[in-house]
Amino acid sequence: MEKVLTLPSVSDVHAAAGRIAPWVRRTPVLTCSGLDEAVGGRLFFKCENFQKTGAFKARGAVNAVFSLEPEEAARGVATHSSGNHGAALAMAAARRGIPAWVVVPADAPPFKRANVARYGATVVDCAPGLSNREAALAEVAEGTGATVIHPYDDARVIAGQGTAAVELMEQVPGLDLLLAPVGGGGLISGCALAARAAGLRVVAAEPAGADDAWQSFQTGGRVRLETTSTIADGLRASLGERNWALMQDHVEGVCRVEDGEIIAAMRTVWERMKIAIEPSAAVPVAALLSGRLPVRGLSVGVILSGGNLDLDGLPGLFAAGRPDGPQAPPPMT
Amino acid sequence: MEKVLTLPSVSDVHAAAGRIAPWVRRTPVLTCSGLDEAVGGRLFFKCENFQKTGAFKARGAVNAVFSLEPEEAARGVATHSSGNHGAALAMAAARRGIPAWVVVPADAPPFKRANVARYGATVVDCAPGLSNREAALAEVAEGTGATVIHPYDDARVIAGQGTAAVELMEQVPGLDLLLAPVGGGGLISGCALAARAAGLRVVAAEPAGADDAWQSFQTGGRVRLETTSTIADGLRASLGERNWALMQDHVEGVCRVEDGEIIAAMRTVWERMKIAIEPSAAVPVAALLSGRLPVRGLSVGVILSGGNLDLDGLPGLFAAGRPDGPQAPPPMT
Repeated sequence: MEKVLTLPSVSDVHAAAGRIAPWVRRTPVLTCSGLDEAVGGRLFFKCENFQKTGAFKARGAVNAVFSLEPEEAARGVATHSSGNHGAALAMAAARRGIPAWVVVPADAPPFKRANVARYGATVVDCAPGLSNREAALAEVAEGTGATVIHPYDDARVIAGQGTAAVELMEQVPGLDLLLAPVGGGGLISGCALAARAAGLRVVAAEPAGADDAWQSFQTGGRVRLETTSTIADGLRASLGERNWALMQDHVEGVCRVEDGEIIAAMRTVWERMKIAIEPSAAVPVAALLSGRLPVRGLSVGVILSGGNLDLDGLPGLFAAGRPDGPQAPPPMT
Repeated sequence: MEKVLTLPSVSDVHAAAGRIAPWVRRTPVLTCSGLDEAVGGRLFFKCENFQKTGAFKARGAVNAVFSLEPEEAARGVATHSSGNHGAALAMAAARRGIPAWVVVPADAPPFKRANVARYGATVVDCAPGLSNREAALAEVAEGTGATVIHPYDDARVIAGQGTAAVELMEQVPGLDLLLAPVGGGGLISGCALAARAAGLRVVAAEPAGADDAWQSFQTGGRVRLETTSTIADGLRASLGERNWALMQDHVEGVCRVEDGEIIAAMRTVWERMKIAIEPSAAVPVAALLSGRLPVRGLSVGVILSGGNLDLDGLPGLFAAGRPDGPQAPPPMT
């Protein structure tokens, strides 16, 4: 018997837009004539780095939390995340007035832990490693009755992330192409659903050191990588099942970029656009600047996915972008 | 006989808004709930770091250049500046299709020189020091017939800078107070003219290491400092004659901040608002966060003046903000 996946529809994305509107920002769209000239197209940057909690993740988390039935919601929500989803879920739970538990591995950077704690979630420490994180989360869920909200392989989360594309298309009519990064695939799958329904082409951008989406398109089946190695820490996650199903239908391809290109793109955006973006958000910009994704004459919507990074780590990050600089961080298993 | 100064009027500011509109950005206004909570007021940040050339200076330069009579304009414009005014004047001249000469001291950072050259101005090298710069500029003006455009002590420049306040008040009706940094006084005097006409209170923010405006208010006469020492390199200039005249009428006071407060405020804006601002732009934010400027319950417009800085210098800048870090740069004479 074939397994049946619950996938969101375009109308779920539009319903999500209404549901989350009171709690998230309608983020601005910025342009940059220098970058337009560099690529020969017109670029429209949807600034999810200005989103509540500093990343698009607020959209999916709020949609998931506010979709829960009251008695389910009352028991709270839980997840494991050392990154933006943890902070987003904490924020969403705080807005609904329900408890949240976020399992954070002991080796997570202090500033990420602080982002989660800021919104009042209970931080549950665990040993590093995916299996430890999953075990700790299962224990929390069993002990509390909290609903586990997956960071991306969840129909409500996907529908929520897709609202970024809905807004962008309202703000900039007439786009030809939508470009977004892919990690687990929550953002790209939700956005692709909405954008394709409106007739746009959709392309994903991915770090070469975590190219499971690219490999999946090559082989036609969802590839899971044993290890990843990229500076774009938000994109190391494995492509989700629902995300891959939607991508197959709505995304025309994946453009891969190297870490050096990612860091250079991030720096270019900081210098020319005066906005702070995290490495993951620079991945689509790197794809554009690489010239491997021709956009001459096109109007291109670009989702800048987030702006959370540790400023103390910046010198090392920029140094890593130089040919003589240190190498990428060790692979994450 | 008393000297008569040409001062701009409120209607000059509104005329400037129309004149410059095709060439500059209507910059967005951002908010930040975390900063609102920190100060107990509602803050509205006018993002001139997103302005063309990366700073509000584009407004004044464009207004001055497009105010010139055709035959005057044809001979070009000139200035001495190692900073944002040089780039802004170069851009404005390029838009009008006239030549520009910018005298740049030999010790100016390469990225600033590049900003000027990017817009096609002729960069004229000179030895460091104000007298050398002025001598080189006089030579250029005599040799070319170019009109010298002062960076701030000029009625057309002041009127142009004031358009930032006009836009902000259109974008956010009902402001109580306007806050902007003061260096030479171009921005604050133009903005104060417009804001006071609309009934707002106006306060200037100034680095303690270049507090000529504060001292001028204390003594009732325009004070000129022999030396200055502050990380906010855009605010080291001496208060202009026209600027001081307008400030006396329209600015209620000056709030001084230390370099450590400026760097901390800059970092807070980067981390919480995800935008890149230069140290000078952080000065009003530092004033707000210091608690020395009570804004509880008020709606406050804050001009974030620019976002041009060398990312390679960032680690040193942040290090300078720590108690055990290096000291401020040597005084500028």
